[in-house]
Amino acid sequence: MRILGIDPGLRVTGYGCVDLDTRGGVAVVEAGVIRPRVGAEREEGTGAISISARLAVLDTDLRAILARLSPQIVAIERVFAHPKHPATAIIMAHARGVMLLATAHAGVRLVELPPADVKKALTGSGRADKGQMQRAVQQAFGLAELPQPADVADALAIAWTAAGRGSVGGVEVRRRKTRARRLPPGAMEGGGR
Amino acid sequence: MRILGIDPGLRVTGYGCVDLDTRGGVAVVEAGVIRPRVGAEREEGTGAISISARLAVLDTDLRAILARLSPQIVAIERVFAHPKHPATAIIMAHARGVMLLATAHAGVRLVELPPADVKKALTGSGRADKGQMQRAVQQAFGLAELPQPADVADALAIAWTAAGRGSVGGVEVRRRKTRARRLPPGAMEGGGR
Repeated sequence: MRILGIDPGLRVTGYGCVDLDTRGGVAVVEAGVIRPRVGAEREEGTGAISISARLAVLDTDLRAILARLSPQIVAIERVFAHPKHPATAIIMAHARGVMLLATAHAGVRLVELPPADVKKALTGSGRADKGQMQRAVQQAFGLAELPQPADVADALAIAWTAAGRGSVGGVEVRRRKTRARRLPPGAMEGGGR
Repeated sequence: MRILGIDPGLRVTGYGCVDLDTRGGVAVVEAGVIRPRVGAEREEGTGAISISARLAVLDTDLRAILARLSPQIVAIERVFAHPKHPATAIIMAHARGVMLLATAHAGVRLVELPPADVKKALTGSGRADKGQMQRAVQQAFGLAELPQPADVADALAIAWTAAGRGSVGGVEVRRRKTRARRLPPGAMEGGGR
């Protein structure tokens, strides 16, 4: 079973694709980021890259990743309003909408996970910070280096958590608690822009 | 100049297409709603129609509307976090992301307007309620009946406001303050599901 974890954002979207074997082993297939850097289309007045232009890049890149890696499941975090950063959740929801649409178009099953469940699955605490998540993901997958940037670690954590609840086509498949196989060389550099 | 105003939502999305002539007159071309009612795809567990399924319908319908009406401008409200209804803004932002993407793909210029500016342009007050907006839109466009539902009125209000700031290809075109032509019979029933 192949799971694509996505950590959506307008500036940086992390993705992490993992394979879960029938004995519960989990291996990273590829992980990386999509970073829309659109040269031409800038907003009138501000000169900033427009949201539309970013969304178009996200859409194109995610569709290419879905086509290339053919996951059976896309796993993505639920989004909640953060009382201190309400605008962040709204911006993220734009990107998330485009990603849910691409997933629906690809006919891939969607799994939505509460962020606290992902943090808890990896670290035992629903309130782990970014650094703790990176270290936990490194350990879980037996990676030689800390997954960078944090968005990649988050995406892999989402895929890892989804692998712990997996059933596809009625077949229950779950990862073991133990660590996964090592990341193949170069897997962390792939994809994105 | 043709402007498509959009009032985005996951359950009901209003749209209102208006033509602005060189003398500043504004006429409604078509207005209606997109209401994703997806039969088959329901969320596991809850039985609710999934967000992905709704977004896919929104995307398909909006692309069809863009292709059929060929607006030069798509006008849409900016979204802000509402301290009392934070989840509403997040849900709406999913739909909005899909709409910005469809607009970018169609190569149509996007105009984003603060909601208060739209309310103020129609009623003189940035805090008008839905009923006031419906009556103001009815008056502005000289409609025989109150535009229903409120989402249609809002979409027409957005298009009307954008028409007051318009310049396309360097040519400044602005609506007059006076009322526009009447809505052609049947224009309010078109489109959507």
